[in-house]
Amino acid sequence: MKTLTSFLSGTWVAGHGQAALLYNATTEEPIAEASTVGLDFAGALRFARQVGGPALRRLSFAERGQILKRLADAIVAHRDELLLLGMINAGNTRSDAKFDVDGASATFAYYAELCKSLGEAHYLVDGEPIPLGRSSRLSGQHVFCSRTGVAIHINAFNFPAWGLAEKAATAIAAGMPFVTKPATSTALLAHRMFEVMIESGALPEGTAQLVCGGAGDLLDHLTSQDVVAFTGSADTAAKLRGHRRVLAKGVPVNVEADSLNVALLGPDLDSGAPSYDLFLTCVVKELTQKAGQKCTAIRRIFVPTDKVEQVVADLIDRLSIHKVGAPSKDEVTIGPLSTAQQKVDALAGIAKLAAEAKIVFGGPDSLSLHGADPSKGYFVMPTLLVAQSSESLSAVHSHEVFGPVATVIPYTDSAQVVAQIARGEGSLVASIYSDDKSFLQDTVLGLAPYHGRICIGSEKVAGTFIPPGTVMPQLLHGGPGRAGGGTELGGTRGMTLYMQRTALQGFGPFLESLATAGAKLSGGR
Amino acid sequence: MKTLTSFLSGTWVAGHGQAALLYNATTEEPIAEASTVGLDFAGALRFARQVGGPALRRLSFAERGQILKRLADAIVAHRDELLLLGMINAGNTRSDAKFDVDGASATFAYYAELCKSLGEAHYLVDGEPIPLGRSSRLSGQHVFCSRTGVAIHINAFNFPAWGLAEKAATAIAAGMPFVTKPATSTALLAHRMFEVMIESGALPEGTAQLVCGGAGDLLDHLTSQDVVAFTGSADTAAKLRGHRRVLAKGVPVNVEADSLNVALLGPDLDSGAPSYDLFLTCVVKELTQKAGQKCTAIRRIFVPTDKVEQVVADLIDRLSIHKVGAPSKDEVTIGPLSTAQQKVDALAGIAKLAAEAKIVFGGPDSLSLHGADPSKGYFVMPTLLVAQSSESLSAVHSHEVFGPVATVIPYTDSAQVVAQIARGEGSLVASIYSDDKSFLQDTVLGLAPYHGRICIGSEKVAGTFIPPGTVMPQLLHGGPGRAGGGTELGGTRGMTLYMQRTALQGFGPFLESLATAGAKLSGGR
Repeated sequence: MKTLTSFLSGTWVAGHGQAALLYNATTEEPIAEASTVGLDFAGALRFARQVGGPALRRLSFAERGQILKRLADAIVAHRDELLLLGMINAGNTRSDAKFDVDGASATFAYYAELCKSLGEAHYLVDGEPIPLGRSSRLSGQHVFCSRTGVAIHINAFNFPAWGLAEKAATAIAAGMPFVTKPATSTALLAHRMFEVMIESGALPEGTAQLVCGGAGDLLDHLTSQDVVAFTGSADTAAKLRGHRRVLAKGVPVNVEADSLNVALLGPDLDSGAPSYDLFLTCVVKELTQKAGQKCTAIRRIFVPTDKVEQVVADLIDRLSIHKVGAPSKDEVTIGPLSTAQQKVDALAGIAKLAAEAKIVFGGPDSLSLHGADPSKGYFVMPTLLVAQSSESLSAVHSHEVFGPVATVIPYTDSAQVVAQIARGEGSLVASIYSDDKSFLQDTVLGLAPYHGRICIGSEKVAGTFIPPGTVMPQLLHGGPGRAGGGTELGGTRGMTLYMQRTALQGFGPFLESLATAGAKLSGGR
Repeated sequence: MKTLTSFLSGTWVAGHGQAALLYNATTEEPIAEASTVGLDFAGALRFARQVGGPALRRLSFAERGQILKRLADAIVAHRDELLLLGMINAGNTRSDAKFDVDGASATFAYYAELCKSLGEAHYLVDGEPIPLGRSSRLSGQHVFCSRTGVAIHINAFNFPAWGLAEKAATAIAAGMPFVTKPATSTALLAHRMFEVMIESGALPEGTAQLVCGGAGDLLDHLTSQDVVAFTGSADTAAKLRGHRRVLAKGVPVNVEADSLNVALLGPDLDSGAPSYDLFLTCVVKELTQKAGQKCTAIRRIFVPTDKVEQVVADLIDRLSIHKVGAPSKDEVTIGPLSTAQQKVDALAGIAKLAAEAKIVFGGPDSLSLHGADPSKGYFVMPTLLVAQSSESLSAVHSHEVFGPVATVIPYTDSAQVVAQIARGEGSLVASIYSDDKSFLQDTVLGLAPYHGRICIGSEKVAGTFIPPGTVMPQLLHGGPGRAGGGTELGGTRGMTLYMQRTALQGFGPFLESLATAGAKLSGGR
């Protein structure tokens, strides 16, 4: 059994005492263990602040971009090895593992390019000079400079590779060292990917550290220039945000948590229309990819009342093709969930939804596996439910079942469906499928306050559409309310989490010289 | 004795039961009372969300600007009446009261102009279109849309007028209704100013509500689209951030809290230089204005070791001219603190500082008043301390004494002074006085991560400089760490607190049409 070490203060170290076990999600065999008992987290944070931070801040954006490029290349070079670890430990099919690992290298590569475009600067310039008072002598200028602390990254079990990479890429780009803690249960892939990153030699000492195992007293050593970025459950997020030290030091906590993402079919689309087909494709993709274990997966499917029957029949047709089983088998498209607890939670969640909506496909009693022992593994069948009306629902709007599970909900008109979707209290992403501009305009602007991202699927983009569950580094990732209120990625937007915005006030030409030496917070790319 | 009512759900209402008393800060006479016992806060928040929000969001930015213009005009029209209330209740001199009341009308007027420039749009457009994938068909675009909840504004005692206005102006501009709660102890002015705002007829029903007295169960009714903006102590901020309902609903909490703001004299300046004179002027202004009760007041004065003696002598010269006493007297330049508790806290704070630094002017035992009974009122004499060295200090870097009190601290070079200033763990504003570009560049960029604003005082702006304690609506107000991590004002920047940023992903030309209908998040102005 492999022991997953941590990388702290420049050394690989193993904890002592009680270790957590990692399992093969298909066979339930223990495959690795990790412990952080006795490790010196206080020292690791100091090391990041005293060694990693200054080293990174001395580099220009372009130089940080070169680091990111090397990290992307290193992951690509070890792709097959990494995919296998995702398949074993997290229950990913090869395609699912690619989505995670290729997402990691692509995000590093994107930020490498972005940093290159920011050039030789060390800070970002926000907006134009602002004249103060009557003369143009006195002027104002906003800039973003790197925070001088350390970023703590706490990731979820479902994206061991991408989760680590998307936070690491933005922190490095912004000039901030990080300590990353993958979820222990699927850390086999994260651990190896981090090893590959260190072995690449790209990272200045103290820039990147890894905690494999429990977080212990990690947060007790936070200081006011540190940052916490967390992906996981709303319950844990509340604990982090309410942590004594976080409150005492005013540490920013970025959260990406629960989300009841929506797919909305417009009233104008009928079976056969390209946009209707796109809707079906996206819904089935989001329900089945990574066995539905994506924070961006579609949980609620809003359909005009008179189209529910057709949609359900079409979805069932497409879902029927999928095969659940051992992720190592070529024909299998849906692997097990990643952990025993996830299976318990998903089944309990399905029962909760089934009290309000009818199971029309899959469900808890329908286990049918390919190449896997049904008495082992964390398998849950893809499950579709249908609600009678949206108004009487509670769990469907509030309980995220983190598995291959979604509910079809009828609606009457755009105002009504916006109000019903809002009952999710904030989500990461909604996707709207329609060719009716007026319906699109009403729903896009109506739903925007409740979402971090809205994907608009129409005839014109049916061939090039990117499914809503795919997070692009160019665009904001995060959503309000239940989704945690965080902002990750989105080009330079995500970098600002690791920087302090400062208004400079003084002699115009002097501020201009500072602005010229900085890089534009373009907002674009 | 006046009873301060609250304005909830469109009506002026008085609480029942135990009322809090407000006092004349000079004579300690009770002048008003306020109670919120029994008031229906849940109903008020619903009223804001159901009536005020939709009414405001229907208006374009330009129309919201017209409201703000009328509010500014109404306050100007009632200026003398409002100034008097600040003088009686908060202990302000007339000049101090002007700073508060004129700041309120100026902030409304600034946002009126900003909104006018944003035109007929209802939302903000962030950045340029982002091409996604290979074809230009699929594109991304970020927008900011108004949140659909209610903003809760909780203000500090020291700016009853400006505090209310700066938060109200940004919320109205952003399209969000608000419920504002002034600190009870100085609510006499806030209450009358709010009355004036309502009487102006400018505000659509449900847009603006007032809580005079305790917050009661106000926060227990928050929902996920609401926002809290708070100015006050770090202790209260921690309670708000850790509030059960805030955590459960993921409600954003913007905080402006404690701050140990710095003035830094460059090594190049000698007595007689215009920038040296500017330094003295600013330090004395910040120490005396509003009796030092400004979150942006200078608390730590860093001076090259070899210049400490001269600086202290010059500061004492200028401080000696000031007269403490009844704010109604023309010759008085420093009034009492606003409340009995503030006096107790300030005196305890001076004692704390005096354990580390030497009192060279003022102090607790030197009360000498003009036109006021020394046995009454919340008077504290302007007090200057001098520390022997910066390294051994603790309270001077961590304990904000909220009164006319500051400490001179010697430093050796730019690297050392940046490290020492950083020990304040995050402040609202630093001001640096120097004509040496290299010193300015090192300290501005070195101090930026620890500050929300940095004012650079040099020869070229000595005549037009705005003292660091004056908050301009064009520039960010807020600071990291101890200062709360908030972002208020700064033009459109402050408005984004009340809006949700959403990444739109879809057909390029459709997104372009949405972008064209929005207003540019200019970042400028």
